[in-house]
Amino acid sequence: MSGQSDEPADDVVPTTQLSFLREAIDAADARAFVHVGDRFDDAMRYLTRFSGPDRAYAFVYIPADSQEPADTVDRAVLCAPRLFCEQAEREFVTAPEDIDSVDRSIRSDAAGEPAGVRAVDALDAVGVTSGSVLVPQHIPHDAAVYLQQAGYELRSTHAVAEQRAVKTDAELDRLQMVQTAAAAGMARAERVLAEGAATDTGLRWGGDRLTTERLRREINAELAAHGVTDAGNTVIGAGESAADLHFTGDVAIDPGETVLIDISPRGPQGYYGDLTRTFVVDGDGGWERRAYVAVESALNIAFGELAPGINAASVHAEAAAELAAYGFPAAEEGEAGFTHGTGHGVGVGLHEAPGLTADTELQPGHVVTIEPGVYDPDRGGVRLEDLVVITDDGAERLATYPRSIVPVADRFLD
Amino acid sequence: MSGQSDEPADDVVPTTQLSFLREAIDAADARAFVHVGDRFDDAMRYLTRFSGPDRAYAFVYIPADSQEPADTVDRAVLCAPRLFCEQAEREFVTAPEDIDSVDRSIRSDAAGEPAGVRAVDALDAVGVTSGSVLVPQHIPHDAAVYLQQAGYELRSTHAVAEQRAVKTDAELDRLQMVQTAAAAGMARAERVLAEGAATDTGLRWGGDRLTTERLRREINAELAAHGVTDAGNTVIGAGESAADLHFTGDVAIDPGETVLIDISPRGPQGYYGDLTRTFVVDGDGGWERRAYVAVESALNIAFGELAPGINAASVHAEAAAELAAYGFPAAEEGEAGFTHGTGHGVGVGLHEAPGLTADTELQPGHVVTIEPGVYDPDRGGVRLEDLVVITDDGAERLATYPRSIVPVADRFLD
Repeated sequence: MSGQSDEPADDVVPTTQLSFLREAIDAADARAFVHVGDRFDDAMRYLTRFSGPDRAYAFVYIPADSQEPADTVDRAVLCAPRLFCEQAEREFVTAPEDIDSVDRSIRSDAAGEPAGVRAVDALDAVGVTSGSVLVPQHIPHDAAVYLQQAGYELRSTHAVAEQRAVKTDAELDRLQMVQTAAAAGMARAERVLAEGAATDTGLRWGGDRLTTERLRREINAELAAHGVTDAGNTVIGAGESAADLHFTGDVAIDPGETVLIDISPRGPQGYYGDLTRTFVVDGDGGWERRAYVAVESALNIAFGELAPGINAASVHAEAAAELAAYGFPAAEEGEAGFTHGTGHGVGVGLHEAPGLTADTELQPGHVVTIEPGVYDPDRGGVRLEDLVVITDDGAERLATYPRSIVPVADRFLD
Repeated sequence: MSGQSDEPADDVVPTTQLSFLREAIDAADARAFVHVGDRFDDAMRYLTRFSGPDRAYAFVYIPADSQEPADTVDRAVLCAPRLFCEQAEREFVTAPEDIDSVDRSIRSDAAGEPAGVRAVDALDAVGVTSGSVLVPQHIPHDAAVYLQQAGYELRSTHAVAEQRAVKTDAELDRLQMVQTAAAAGMARAERVLAEGAATDTGLRWGGDRLTTERLRREINAELAAHGVTDAGNTVIGAGESAADLHFTGDVAIDPGETVLIDISPRGPQGYYGDLTRTFVVDGDGGWERRAYVAVESALNIAFGELAPGINAASVHAEAAAELAAYGFPAAEEGEAGFTHGTGHGVGVGLHEAPGLTADTELQPGHVVTIEPGVYDPDRGGVRLEDLVVITDDGAERLATYPRSIVPVADRFLD
C-alpha cells in the first residue's frame, strides 16, 4: 500500500553496542547477563531500544564461550511480550559494532508466562543451566527468585549504568534534538510572560489571570508540536512556590515575583532534555536580581570547570562556593540558600551518571546538566540550567538558550 | 506573597484508603506491608499519591497491633527521598476513611541510603524487627534482599492490584477528565483528516503531505492544551502500519486507507484515558468498510454484555464471536483477524485489572476499555475503543465520542 511509501524522518536512531556486557561478564567470572523490566525501566530501554509495554519483559546476553556447546557469536535475546513481536523486530536492532560478534534474536512468549521464567528458558536454550548471572540490582524480585530457583547465582552489576554515561554521536544527536524542543517550549513561555500585562489583579494574558498551569499548557503544546512529550515533567513555580523544588500545582503569577520554569521533555527514542530559566515581570531589582546575578555567575563558573579528567564533585564545589560568595550558602531543602546538587547526567534516564556531586572523573561524551539555584521560602527561587556535553577539551551546550531575567517576546533560537 | 493566593482548579484529588492493607496483612498472618519503587511504579503511585523522583523510595504500612508496644492506630510511612519532602507533604494526604485509624508520616532519608534500608528502619522504629512482611512481587530485588537480611520473611501479595481495580468516585472523576481530553485530541485529528485534500500525491493538509507524525503532533498539542500529557502513547497507523498494533513511526497517509488512532494520555494525578477511532478519507467501501461494520457491531455487543456479576472473559468471547460471524476470526499477531483481547482495566496504570480475558467477575467501579479490532497485514486495521465504568446495573462510557468511518470536521463534544 502506498501509505507505506514512507517519507522517513531523517532521524538518527541510536543503537546500543552490547559487547560491553561480555567484558562485564568475563570480569565477574559469570556466564550471562539478565535484566527484566517494563517500558519505564531506563536500563531495559538502553539495552534493547524496545519501547515495549507496561508489563515486564526479559533481556538475556550470553557470550559465545558461555554457551554449551561454545558458539562463535554472543547471543542477545529479547523475550518480547505477546502482541509486541512486530514492534520488537523494528526496534531491537543490531549496532554496527556488534554485527560480527553478537547475534540478536527475539523469543515470543506463551501468554501469561512470567518474564523471569522466560529468561531462564533463554539461558537453557544455549546450554547455560547453572553458574553466576549478572543482574542490575533493581531487577524485579520475582524475576530474581525464578532465576535463583532455576539454579543460577545472582551477582549485581553497575555495568549498564556506567556504559550509559558515555554517549555516542547518535545519542548526542537525539539529546540535542530534544533539548532544542525544550528551548522552543521555553521561548513560548518567555513570550507569554513578555506579553503579560501587569495589573492590580496580577499578571494577565489573553484576557485571563496568568497562572502556572496556563503557562505549563502553553509550553507542553509547543513541545508536542516539536514531536516530544512533556513527560509530566514541566515544573513551574511562581513566588513562594518557586522555592519548592518540585512544584506542579496551579497558582496565579504576579508581577515582581520569580517565575521558575524547568522543562524536561522526552523524545521518541527515549532521550530527555532539561532546561531551566527564571524570569521576573516588572521586577523591582531586589532579592530576585541579586539571586539571579549569583546563579548566573555560578552557572558560568561551573561551565568553565567542565573538562575531561575533572572530578565531577569539584564542579559542584565551585558552583557552591560562588553562590556562597554572593551570600547564598548551601542549605537544606526548605531553607534559604542553595539546596541541591549542581547537576546530573541525562540520557534515556532523566537522572543518570555522572552526578556532579559524585567522586568520579568527567569523560568526553558525558552529558550533564549544570543547574545552580538559590531559594528562599519567603521570597521565591532562581535556577538556571543548561545541558552540556563534555568534549575532548572542555564542554559544549547541546542547545543554547539566552539568559535574561526580563522576559523577551521574540527569541531567535539556533 | 500574593502569587500564593491560589486560584485553585476545582480538581478532585483522589486519596487512597489504606486500611485494605491491614486486612491483607491479617489474612496472611503477616506483620506489615512494604513496597519500594520510583515515580514510574503505578502501585507506589496508588499507595502514596506521591509523584516523586525517578529513583527508588519506600512505603511501609504497619497495623496497630503489629507494633511493639501495640498502638491504637496503624502507621503508613512514606520514606521520601532527599529534596522531595515538601512534595511528599503535599501529595501523601490522608483519605477521609483513614482519619481515625491510620497515621501517615514522612521520614526523610540520609543522602544515598538505599530505599530498602529505609524501609527496614521504618519497621524497626515501631518495634517490628522480625516476622512476615507482605510485598508486591515486583518489588526491586535489592530492596527484597535488604529486608531478608534484616530478618524478615517476604510473602508476595496481589492486594494492591485488587484494590486498584475498583474505582472511587474521585478516581472516576479523574478518569473522566482525562478521557474527555483524549476526546478533544481525537476531535482535532478528525478535523485534520476531514480537511485533508485527496490528491495524486496522497493526502495533503496545510500545504504538506499529511503523515502519521504530523497528525500525532496535532493530537498531542491538543492534549497538552487540556492539561494532560500524551505519555508517549499516541499510536497512529495508516494502511499496512494500522495492522501493526504498536506502530509509532512516520508514514504518509493516503486516501482510501485505514487511519487508526489510539490515544492514551495521562492526567496530572496519574490517571489514564484510552480512546481509539479509525477513519478512512475517500474510501471505496471495500475491506475497510466491512471491517468497520464488524468492529462497530462487536463493540456494541461487548458494551451490552458489561454488568456486575458478568464473567470478564465472556465479554471477550462475545466480541470475538461477533467478529468471527462477520468473517474476522481470532488470529495470532501479524496474521489477518482479531489478534488481541477485547479490553483491560485502566487507572493509575494504563493496563491493570480486570482484563477482559480474565476469569473474574465484573464489579461496580471496574473501569475497562472495550476495543475490538480486526487487522490484515496487507490492507490495514480497524479498531474502535471506548472507556467504560461498570455501574450497579450495567455500564457507562466515561466520555462519549461519535463513531464514523468518514472523518467529520466539527465534532460537538459533551
